[in-house]
Amino acid sequence: MSNTISLQPLSNFTFSTKESQPEEDPSVAARLQRLTNDYDAKGMRRTVEGVLVVHDHGHPHILMLQIANAFFKLPGHYLSPGEDESLGLKRRLDIQLTMDVNENTLPPGVSASGLSGASLGTDSFDLGGGDWEVGDCLGTWWRPNYETYMYPYTPPHVTKPKECKKLYLIHMPERKVLAVPKNMKLLAIPLFELYDNTARYGPQLAALVTALSKYDFVYL
Amino acid sequence: MSNTISLQPLSNFTFSTKESQPEEDPSVAARLQRLTNDYDAKGMRRTVEGVLVVHDHGHPHILMLQIANAFFKLPGHYLSPGEDESLGLKRRLDIQLTMDVNENTLPPGVSASGLSGASLGTDSFDLGGGDWEVGDCLGTWWRPNYETYMYPYTPPHVTKPKECKKLYLIHMPERKVLAVPKNMKLLAIPLFELYDNTARYGPQLAALVTALSKYDFVYL
Repeated sequence: MSNTISLQPLSNFTFSTKESQPEEDPSVAARLQRLTNDYDAKGMRRTVEGVLVVHDHGHPHILMLQIANAFFKLPGHYLSPGEDESLGLKRRLDIQLTMDVNENTLPPGVSASGLSGASLGTDSFDLGGGDWEVGDCLGTWWRPNYETYMYPYTPPHVTKPKECKKLYLIHMPERKVLAVPKNMKLLAIPLFELYDNTARYGPQLAALVTALSKYDFVYL
Repeated sequence: MSNTISLQPLSNFTFSTKESQPEEDPSVAARLQRLTNDYDAKGMRRTVEGVLVVHDHGHPHILMLQIANAFFKLPGHYLSPGEDESLGLKRRLDIQLTMDVNENTLPPGVSASGLSGASLGTDSFDLGGGDWEVGDCLGTWWRPNYETYMYPYTPPHVTKPKECKKLYLIHMPERKVLAVPKNMKLLAIPLFELYDNTARYGPQLAALVTALSKYDFVYL
């Protein structure tokens, strides 16, 4: 029954920007049409998203992308047919949040003193990708139809769901530069803000608070 | 990432009745007063509850106690100081749901043919206790004050919560007679009824749907 998880402080992470990553579909209708086309061609869509948890002053926060000052989403994407969930999720996290290789310079806002100071210890300041550690599944959501709503179970009599989305806990590296596409923000949302706030964050994100409650957090 | 859980069919369980187990406290005020007294004498209250999951026609159901045709609760209770969580939970499940030793006869409604029929296989029909298997913690709730509300996290600046409640998944035995105190009902609530239904079941029970969504269920 060991459910202990260590959380890094938010201050260990540095935020930079990278090229915009526009939404694939210009409208909800277009998104559902793509889902329909993909289902006909490749079967049920499998989506994976990462739950990046840090702490600020001893309270857990989840890192979320905000698009157009409006809706919130977790980093992640749907997988290619046959693609491994864990590897596919790591690759999508790199695409969305890791600095591009050709941008491998100091990000704006990171000073030389910040990189060499005693507070950083002896570890290298990681600018690259590939160091996400995928942990437990925190929840699974099913889309029974070509509609916007999803459920945390397969509804009775639904035999061919159109999408299955899994949310995975990500164990953060000790330090990292997180490069955020210019058309998004990356926000650290405290659990007390997210709890019981389906109106603002939707049921999938709000439910993360109770899903995380099983863990004993250690605040590094 | 193995999250597979086998669920027994609801029809494998037989329901009997046993002596009433009245609520300890006659009112909410009395309950909070007892919490206050206990905290002063013994420190933070530790409560454990069991989430008994079965399936009916391939959809998961949670077994819940209903009291006075009104509110729903999971079987469980608070522990004695120093008492082991898992052992204490098993003991409370026996007290609430297992037939008393001196009632060790066929329960009303269980026919002799039902006990010896081919549908029961060769296993013994378990009338006794002690065969609960405590699984994963599904959630933790904290009571910051001597008040009725609880949160699935410790709110910032709360250093001395008054109660910590943990909800544990119970792996059900293949068959069992469940003896329900006369002043209660035991109901199997389907996940689709519980989901997004905080109004009827409260936040702790409604949140179990998303907490359970991480599992792949096998319907036996």
